[in-house]
Order: sequence, then C-alpha cells, then structure tokens
Amino acid sequence: MVINPVATDVWNEGDGAYLREVAREGTRLAVVNIDRGPLTIESYYDEAHAVPDVLRIVRENRDSYDGIMINCFADPGLQPARELCDIPVAGPAESAMVIASLLGHNFAVICTQKNVKPMVEMKAAYLGLRKKLASVEHIDLPVSELETDSEKTVEAIERAICEAEKKAEVAVLGCTGMLSLYREVVRRAKIPVVEPAAAALKVLETLIDLKVSHSKQGLYLYPVLEKIKGY
Amino acid sequence: MVINPVATDVWNEGDGAYLREVAREGTRLAVVNIDRGPLTIESYYDEAHAVPDVLRIVRENRDSYDGIMINCFADPGLQPARELCDIPVAGPAESAMVIASLLGHNFAVICTQKNVKPMVEMKAAYLGLRKKLASVEHIDLPVSELETDSEKTVEAIERAICEAEKKAEVAVLGCTGMLSLYREVVRRAKIPVVEPAAAALKVLETLIDLKVSHSKQGLYLYPVLEKIKGY
Amino acid sequence: MVINPVATDVWNEGDGAYLREVAREGTRLAVVNIDRGPLTIESYYDEAHAVPDVLRIVRENRDSYDGIMINCFADPGLQPARELCDIPVAGPAESAMVIASLLGHNFAVICTQKNVKPMVEMKAAYLGLRKKLASVEHIDLPVSELETDSEKTVEAIERAICEAEKKAEVAVLGCTGMLSLYREVVRRAKIPVVEPAAAALKVLETLIDLKVSHSKQGLYLYPVLEKIKGY
Amino acid sequence: MVINPVATDVWNEGDGAYLREVAREGTRLAVVNIDRGPLTIESYYDEAHAVPDVLRIVRENRDSYDGIMINCFADPGLQPARELCDIPVAGPAESAMVIASLLGHNFAVICTQKNVKPMVEMKAAYLGLRKKLASVEHIDLPVSELETDSEKTVEAIERAICEAEKKAEVAVLGCTGMLSLYREVVRRAKIPVVEPAAAALKVLETLIDLKVSHSKQGLYLYPVLEKIKGY
Amino acid sequence: MVINPVATDVWNEGDGAYLREVAREGTRLAVVNIDRGPLTIESYYDEAHAVPDVLRIVRENRDSYDGIMINCFADPGLQPARELCDIPVAGPAESAMVIASLLGHNFAVICTQKNVKPMVEMKAAYLGLRKKLASVEHIDLPVSELETDSEKTVEAIERAICEAEKKAEVAVLGCTGMLSLYREVVRRAKIPVVEPAAAALKVLETLIDLKVSHSKQGLYLYPVLEKIKGY
Amino acid sequence: MVINPVATDVWNEGDGAYLREVAREGTRLAVVNIDRGPLTIESYYDEAHAVPDVLRIVRENRDSYDGIMINCFADPGLQPARELCDIPVAGPAESAMVIASLLGHNFAVICTQKNVKPMVEMKAAYLGLRKKLASVEHIDLPVSELETDSEKTVEAIERAICEAEKKAEVAVLGCTGMLSLYREVVRRAKIPVVEPAAAALKVLETLIDLKVSHSKQGLYLYPVLEKIKGY
Repeated sequence: MVINPVATDVWNEGDGAYLREVAREGTRLAVVNIDRGPLTIESYYDEAHAVPDVLRIVRENRDSYDGIMINCFADPGLQPARELCDIPVAGPAESAMVIASLLGHNFAVICTQKNVKPMVEMKAAYLGLRKKLASVEHIDLPVSELETDSEKTVEAIERAICEAEKKAEVAVLGCTGMLSLYREVVRRAKIPVVEPAAAALKVLETLIDLKVSHSKQGLYLYPVLEKIKGY
Repeated sequence: MVINPVATDVWNEGDGAYLREVAREGTRLAVVNIDRGPLTIESYYDEAHAVPDVLRIVRENRDSYDGIMINCFADPGLQPARELCDIPVAGPAESAMVIASLLGHNFAVICTQKNVKPMVEMKAAYLGLRKKLASVEHIDLPVSELETDSEKTVEAIERAICEAEKKAEVAVLGCTGMLSLYREVVRRAKIPVVEPAAAALKVLETLIDLKVSHSKQGLYLYPVLEKIKGY
Repeated sequence: MVINPVATDVWNEGDGAYLREVAREGTRLAVVNIDRGPLTIESYYDEAHAVPDVLRIVRENRDSYDGIMINCFADPGLQPARELCDIPVAGPAESAMVIASLLGHNFAVICTQKNVKPMVEMKAAYLGLRKKLASVEHIDLPVSELETDSEKTVEAIERAICEAEKKAEVAVLGCTGMLSLYREVVRRAKIPVVEPAAAALKVLETLIDLKVSHSKQGLYLYPVLEKIKGY
Repeated sequence: MVINPVATDVWNEGDGAYLREVAREGTRLAVVNIDRGPLTIESYYDEAHAVPDVLRIVRENRDSYDGIMINCFADPGLQPARELCDIPVAGPAESAMVIASLLGHNFAVICTQKNVKPMVEMKAAYLGLRKKLASVEHIDLPVSELETDSEKTVEAIERAICEAEKKAEVAVLGCTGMLSLYREVVRRAKIPVVEPAAAALKVLETLIDLKVSHSKQGLYLYPVLEKIKGY
Repeated sequence: MVINPVATDVWNEGDGAYLREVAREGTRLAVVNIDRGPLTIESYYDEAHAVPDVLRIVRENRDSYDGIMINCFADPGLQPARELCDIPVAGPAESAMVIASLLGHNFAVICTQKNVKPMVEMKAAYLGLRKKLASVEHIDLPVSELETDSEKTVEAIERAICEAEKKAEVAVLGCTGMLSLYREVVRRAKIPVVEPAAAALKVLETLIDLKVSHSKQGLYLYPVLEKIKGY
Repeated sequence: MVINPVATDVWNEGDGAYLREVAREGTRLAVVNIDRGPLTIESYYDEAHAVPDVLRIVRENRDSYDGIMINCFADPGLQPARELCDIPVAGPAESAMVIASLLGHNFAVICTQKNVKPMVEMKAAYLGLRKKLASVEHIDLPVSELETDSEKTVEAIERAICEAEKKAEVAVLGCTGMLSLYREVVRRAKIPVVEPAAAALKVLETLIDLKVSHSKQGLYLYPVLEKIKGY
C-alpha cells in the first residue's frame, strides 16, 4: 500500500505506474491519497494537517497489506504509523538517505525551497547521517510547479546536481514529486542519483522479505485509540 | 496565552493558578484547551491528533497575544505554530532542557513511561543538547494516573531523581502533568529540579522582553493556509 | 549585581542605564568594575588577569544579592564564581547563544577580531551548541575602538550580519561593548539579533524567579578559600 | 556472486542454500571461497590476509555478475572491491546495521569475542551510526566453535540478546557464521533480529534493482592494477 | 622549564628528579613554583588564582628556554601562556590524553575527587577526544593527602584502574601528584598506564625536536601586555 | 625499524638520511621495503596489496627492535601490526594529526589526489579529530610525480597551504613522499607545517621512552598465525 499524503488524486496513477516498474516481480501495490489535508507538503504546517488522515488510512488497512509506504519526502506520519502497525512502514527521505549513504563517502539532497534545507539537515541528524550529508541544494520551485515546465525543472535540478557534485559523491532527489523526471536527470548526472519513492519501495520490499518489522520494545508502543476525541 | 493540547479542560484552572504564581508581575495569561484530540499525550499518535486543533487556536489568536506557550512536554505543534506566528512560541521540553543545561554539566529527565526515553533523547539531540542529557529515568505511570495517588507519584519521582543523582547534576521533570507535585519533589531532591511549564513561561517572558521572535529566514516560512482541505 | 570585568569604570553608567531599561519591573541592579586587571578582554591573557578580582567581588557580595551577572562575552570567571556562590551567576555568551538556539535552526556570532572565532567555537561546543553555530564573522575592530566612530562600527556590524544571513537564521552580537549600538543594528537586520548583556540579565531573572541555582553535586563544589596564598 | 573470504569451502553449500531461500525470485547466486588466506576472520591480521585473494576473485568476475557480496561481518575488502567494480558490492556488517537503524531508535550487535566490540564501534562510526549502536554484547566463542554445539551457541546468543534488550530495540547478529542458527534465535527473541548475510543480499538486490552503484567521483577511483608487484 | 603552578616548593625537587629520569639525553630542565596562588589545584577557583603568577613566570622566562611545561593535570594557564610565547608550551592533561589515544581504542582517567570528572570530560571534548574517554574513576582523596599514606593511595589507584579495565584499554593518571607512585601502579595494572607529567615532557621534547610551535594565526595572538592594571 | 610499504627500494636511502637527522641522539634506525605489493599507495587497492608483506616484515623483526614505523600516510597495516607486536608501532598520518591537534585550534591536510580527501576525513574521525580537521587540500599530482619537478611540486604545495591558511591554523603534509621538500615548504608557510614521517618517528621515540605500548586488552589481541593458508 502506497499512501500519497495529499488531498488530491492527481498523482496516484502516475506514481503507481512508476512504482510498479521499479517493484520486483510479485509485488502488488495500491496507491491511495488522503481526503483531508494539504494539496502539497512544503511546511510543518502542511505536514501537521496531513498526518491525521494518513493515520486513518493506516488504521483501516493495517491488516490487509504486507507493508505501507508514505509517499512524500517529508515522511509525514512515519512514526505514529509505526506505532499503529505490526507491518513495516517506509518513508522516502529515510530510505533514500540510507541508500545514498551506502553509495559513497557523503551525499547531497536536491530540494525544492529554502526552508527544506534545515528540515533535511534535521532528518539526517535523526538518522545518524548528519556527517554524511555534505550539502542541501534548492531549486527554488514550489512543488506545485515542478511539472508545469518539465524541461525547466530538469534544468534546475541539473544545475543543482552540478553544484552538489563539487561537495558530494551521491545525490538524493529531495521530493517525490520529481519522480517523473528521474530518468532524464540521471542521464545528465555524473554521480549516482537516488530517487526517494523508488528507494522507499525497495526498502519496504527488503523488510518484508527479511520478515522484520519495527521494534515495539522502545520508541514505538501501541497507542490507545480510544483516547482520541473528534477524529 | 497557554494552550493545553488535550481535549479536556480539567487542568486549565490548576495550571493557570500555578503559572500565575510563577509569572512576573504584569504578565496576564489565559489557559485554553483543544476541542478535538487526545485526552493525554503519550505517543506520536496522540501528538499527531493534538496538533491540528492546537494550530487552529494559534491561527485564531496570533494577533491577540504577546506570546504563546504549548503546555505539554511533547512540545506538540511547536514548529508549525512558529511558522504561523510572528510572536514567540515556547514549549516546556525545549525550555526546560535549555535552562537545565545552564545549571550544571549535565542533566537527567524524569519521564512517565518507557517510550518517552527515546523521544527525549531525540528532542535533546535536536536542540544540540544530547551530550548534556546524562540519563532518562521513567516512573512507569501513565499521565492519567499521575494525580490519582499524589503521595505514590511523588515517591516514584523521588526514587527516579535519586537514581538520576548518580549520573546527573540537574533533574528535569519530563511531564507538565507533574507540576502540582513540584514543590514537594523539590523539597526532597539534592540536585536542582526544573519544572517545565514554569520554564516555558519564563522563556516566553524573556523572549517578549527582549523583543525577539523566531527567524523567518530559514526553517520557519509562512505557510499557505488555503492549501489545506477539510480543516 | 553586574560585574564589568575590566579595570575601568567608563562603561558602568551606560551599561547600567541600558540594563535597567531591559530589566523587568522590580529588578534593582548595581554595576561595578574590577580594580586590577585588563582594560578590555580580547585574549586568554586578558581574561586570566581579570578573573581573580572578579572572584574577589563575588566573594565579598555573594550574600547581598539574588544573582550575579559577569558583563563580558568571554564569560570570565563564570565557573569559579559558580563554585563560590549559592545564587545564580550568568554570563552573556552562554545566555545569548542559548537564547539564539531557541529562535531558529542555527545562529551566527558577530565578533571583534580573528582570534575570537575559535574561542566562540569552543564556547559553543562546551554548551553543546556547536552544530547550531553556523558561522562566526569578525569586524576586525578592537574593543577599545568600537565606540570611537559609532556609524563606522554599525556599518561594519551590518556588513557582518549580511554575511551571516547567508548562513544563519539568527545573529548574536559577540561583544557586550556593542550594546549601545544594538538598537540601530536591529533596525537594519533581516534576522533576529540577540544582544548578550540583555540576554544574560533576562536569564538571570529567569533563574531567580524559578528559584533554581547551579548544582553543587558535580562540577561546582565549594572551593577551600584558605588554600590561596597572596590574594 | 557471493565471496566467502575464508580459505575453506566448508560453508559454501550451506550459505548458498540459506541465501537462495532469502533471495527474491529471479536472483541467481554463486558462492565461492578464497584459496589463500585465513580459515576464519577474527582479527585485523586475519582480515589483512583475506583481502588480496578476495580482490583477485572480484577482478576476475567483475564483468560476469550484477553485484558482489562479501560474506563476512568484517566486510573484508569492501572498499578496494568498490574501487575495482562498476557493479555494487555489499557487505553484511554495513547492510545489517543500516537495516537495523530503520527498525528502531537504536540497536545492539551480538558478536563472538571481546576484540570485535571496538571493531563494531568503529564500523558504526564510519557509517555515521555510532549513536544508534546502543551496545555490543559478545558470547565469548571463537567462530570455529559456533557450530560445534549448536544448542549451546543458541543459548549463548539468547543470553546476549536478553542483555541487549535492556539497552536496545533491535539486535544484529555480528557474525555471518551464525546464519544457520538464525531461525531458532529469532523464535526466542522479543526484539527484531537482523541476520547480516541475508541483509547484505537484500541490499545488493535493492541496489541492482535501483540501477545505482558506488560513486566513482570521490572516495572510490579506479586503481592502477599494473602498479602491483608479486600478485 | 617546568612550572609547578602551586605556591609551595615542596614538590620541586622530587618532580625534577623524576622528570630528569624520563628526559632524553641532552634535555636540561629547571623546576620552579609560583609565589602567589593555591597550595594545590582542585577547583576552578584554585586554577583562577594560579594562572596570573604562572603567566608572570612565563613572561620572564620565555626568551631563556626551548619550551615550557606546566606541571599540573588542570593545565592551568596553558592557553594564555601560548599567546605569550613563541616556544612550545605543554600541559600534562592534554599530552597524556593524546598519547593514551594512540595506545588503544579508548582510555580512562583516574582522578582524585568527584568534581574532576566533568572537568576531564570537558578537557577531552576540547581536544576532540571525548569519544575515546571511556570513563573517569575517582579515588576520593584530596591532592594534599595523596602522599600521606602511599600504600593506601596506591591501593585506591589500583582499585580505580581495576574498575577502569572493565571499560577502557588504557589508563591515564589524572593528577601529576601521583607521579611518585607511578612505578608501583604500573606494576599492578594489566593495561598500559600513562603518567601525565612524563607525557608532557616527552611531548615538549617532540615539539622542540620537530622545530614546531603553536600557530599564531588563529586562536593564539600576542596579547597587549600594557593593558593590564595592577599586576 | 622503518618499513617503506612499497615494492621498491628507491626511497630507502633518502628516507633514512632524513629520519636520522630528525632522530634524537641514540636512536638507530633501519629502513626496509616490502618485496610484494604496490609501487606507491594511492588507493584502498594499493593498500590491500601492501599489507601482507608489511606484516611479514613485522613478524620477522618484532623481537629485534624497540619500535616499528610504517612509513606511508595511509598507515597501511598499522592495526594488524599492533596485534602482532608487543613493541609500539607508529604511523605517519596518525602521528602527524595528533601533533597538529596540539599546535592550534584546527588543522588542514595537504594531500596528493582527490580520493585522499575522504580517506583523510575518515582517518581523522577514527582518531576522534574530525572536528579539528578544517580542510583537506589536494595538489592533483600522483605520488610517483612528486619528485619529478621539485620546484613545481613545492609551488603546488605552497598554493595548497595558502588555501589552507584561510581555514586552518596548522598544516599537515598528507604524503610521506613530500619529505624531501619539507624544508622549502616550511620556509614559505605562515602557519606551522607538520611533516608526517618525522612526526611518526618522534611519537615512536616518545612511546619507547615512556615504556608504554598498545593495549592488548581490547581492540588488539594476538592473532592465531597458524590459521593463515598460503602466506
């Protein structure tokens, strides 16, 4: 199950097609979106309003799937979803950074706008990968405009990767909204480029194959659902 | 303005009385609670369901107050609230740890249940204070039972502080629900004890007096409110 | 009580006036300077010669005040003063960096000369805030010349803050000798600017209001005064 | 291709059978061992004598496979092998720790003898995961005796995991020689247990599926093969 | 030149004899003490009162020697002395920890009283060696009593080293007042033991032989001597 | 004993002459090279093929010398050599960085080619000195060409040190192949420059004089020599 944590279904089909191509044989996947929440996630405020409906979907489906992927580089709701589930839950930022850390001494993240830089630095620190994050470049385009003029976006990403190549050995695309442009971006880059939605899917397949899931003996305990009023 | 991020008003009056005593002369404060959300915050899941209504209150009141305090050691919604506001927003965990770091070489946090330990470690890391956090002790009582038998709770906290004294120079109470017991706890402790709700109030007063607020040139940008559907 | 750790009284009156304006109602403060020591503190050598007389003043006054502030960004004698006292002792560098860390993802310090950069980096590391210190800019003016040509100094600080804005979300003035220029500096800056003497005063008021002081169970033990010969 | 970096073929068949079960459909794998080198790897000295022959096998086969896995928790030769290859090279320690870091706040490694503890700490530091490594427990059995008395070994591992559970949320088996006992070990543990050979295989499949390999723009440059005398 | 930063000459002769034995052929050394200051250094307060007279001696002798050693584990005045001098200045704590870091994966420091533990942790952090400092054990004896009952002191140190051996690979004696007992302590220890006065002397010889001294292009600039009043 | 870990004797004589000049009176030293391995060490691949023969020499000579120095900035075989020996083993990178850390707040390393930068960063991290490593500059010359045109090499190093001076207080030459140019390089630099072969020799003398060697109670245990086939 793939959850697009945005209150629109415009990306479901395209994301599904892309991910099915990346998936290994035998993986079946459903892409759904939330009903209530932001149209795109670009701030803590957006994220806060996406999470409750992400959790509703997780709650309703946790017994029907082998794993859940939250398809946004902010990884919204990753931690409370893991509290709810016995199945593994993967997020693109976490997965992509971890894979990038295996491909070279350090990596850069290519993100959309200025405020994402400190967010990515904090996410990397939380994963223990702060020292491997050599730079965060931003292309200064809001998520909603990424696909308006694909060629322009690809060029902006290309410039950002060029800049990143001076400081880092690997690049991570810092927004799952860039996935339709991935192939073209890779063609132009000299360093390996990790696309985070694909990374999250493969990490999820790996955890399912290894039959391991998140520990329930520490950070993630089962929440008391009855305690919530008004949802 | 003090926001209790729980869907109950049982603590408003007591918390208000306590905080008014700590406040410096001239500070006027209103204590409100959220309508929709959890009764107590003890997991990421609880926190996720508290934040949207916290943000609604912040949105509706950001022009009417000099500062906002979110009265829970999870600091729920602290970051998106800062995106929304030009006035300072303070949280108990952040404030208490920062003050504790000024009182000795290291500090310990006394929290309620096991899963709060890694949460506190992450919060400290995010503040840059991970090396000053010498230990997290838990008393193994849910928040809802803290005031059931005050003497028993005080004794549990006392034992936890005793344990903390072996490893740390300062103790931080890791739940604003412990504030009614603070006076008794301090009386029994050999090391300084920081109560986080009071700490947040004083930090807020300090920021207001210094006429400084959160930077809007990096992490915190104004969110686009229209983008949210269903709230 | 405010101790100017320099062997001159030229700043006492101005500093007192400035701090009284920042102080909350009810705070009374006395500004004194040392008799023996340096005219300004710009090196470890200066600092070493200021500390004994700072400690003499602390020793003579520790029973007469609610708190002590050492008014210099080098925080000279902060640690031995805390050994001597049961009342809280605050320093501008420590206080200002801690407050800056609450206002954004990272901060910069604007200091006077080149050698202060590594000193500030070490101070930040000692506080656990090394990762939040994004840059140290220096204006290349000795402390004694800061007030010679105010407009020139303000412009130098403005340029340094401009440079800092590229890397950091918050600026800290790295010398209490800049306090008379603070208002003008703030007017020109796009990011929040923290003035350290005011920060130290507010931190001191906070600690006094919270009725907490430095732990005497670890780093700070009472010194044996009789052991010192010749002072 | 799976390289057992030990000068014996006794494990090839068993390891192959185990890994084929873990592999996803479509993965074909060959298990080979080195001719010259140690019988087991338990010291830097052993590792140093395994690497040249590992590299010979890599050199001879780098055009015939999609990826290479070095089947030993010391990850011997991982870095020079990556210099030699355009295909991805995975190692068990690196892969297992990275996967464990995704399953909880922290993890423990269960290793064989005392000297492996600092080695594991250094490996974790190199990966950026030092803060997530909560403990290293050792069972005090040399690798060569792991399979002598399986029940005794399983019990020793069980005790070590029990100890680890007090400090960590996830366990990593710190020797690929424990793979035949994995199923039994998992059955007895309360926390998730990661078996490193399986982890390395899945990481390798992931990198192959994502069509990414190690960056050749920084740490890993092609070596000049002609410069080596006597091999 | 060896400076004992205590206002007594009782150790000069013994320290001189000990150090001459450790010195390489050709090294000539003079041991002097300060006139004004503490009898022993066991607090920040003691240290603050030792430094001005240490600096007087450095100032008066900086042209007459090849290097200066400050003979106390607190390294009092090390930094301002380096500002004053073109010749190298070595301190026992710094030297001993650096040498210990070369002898194993981590080390422990055996110190006198409780408050020295955080001091040593900060010193190690300042040197970048915090992660290599595995523990600080204290024997709970004031410096002045170390030589009262040598056998008792040796036994206390032996017990502390035993404790350290559980956590660390190397031990550092955390007080130069333990040097007369070093030989006996080494005889009983299973791990290497570094005596800090000897370590400082050898580091000083090394710097002199390498013809290198402290950089004057950053942290250490020449102080303006005329600025100091009353010394 | 000095081991040149390269399969050529062209440097033995020059290195011997240089080191004998640096050595203190009484130190006698023999310079030998390996028979099998690379002509220069510039990659992990080169290093891997140098180590077995380095260890053969160590094994054959460990009872005949007071200490061993491995004369290459990659410190090849340092760790397994310490497992084999009771006498101290020193390496240039480790020794030079440790000495540089004593000479200023931070240091830079001047290395040959691009891929050495991440290697040096990892080496510094392993020593705990990552925060003191301010930059790594590379001169873009292979080791084999360092002495082809001395003047050109000296100029390249001079430019790199100039660049380093903007960021660091001390420079370390990052290749023992630069030793013949050291005197000229020092003459042109404004900051202290540490030559690593000399640094390793002095560190070795220091350890021998202090009668300490590597701990055998943790990381370094005696290897089982019989376990190795084919060497």
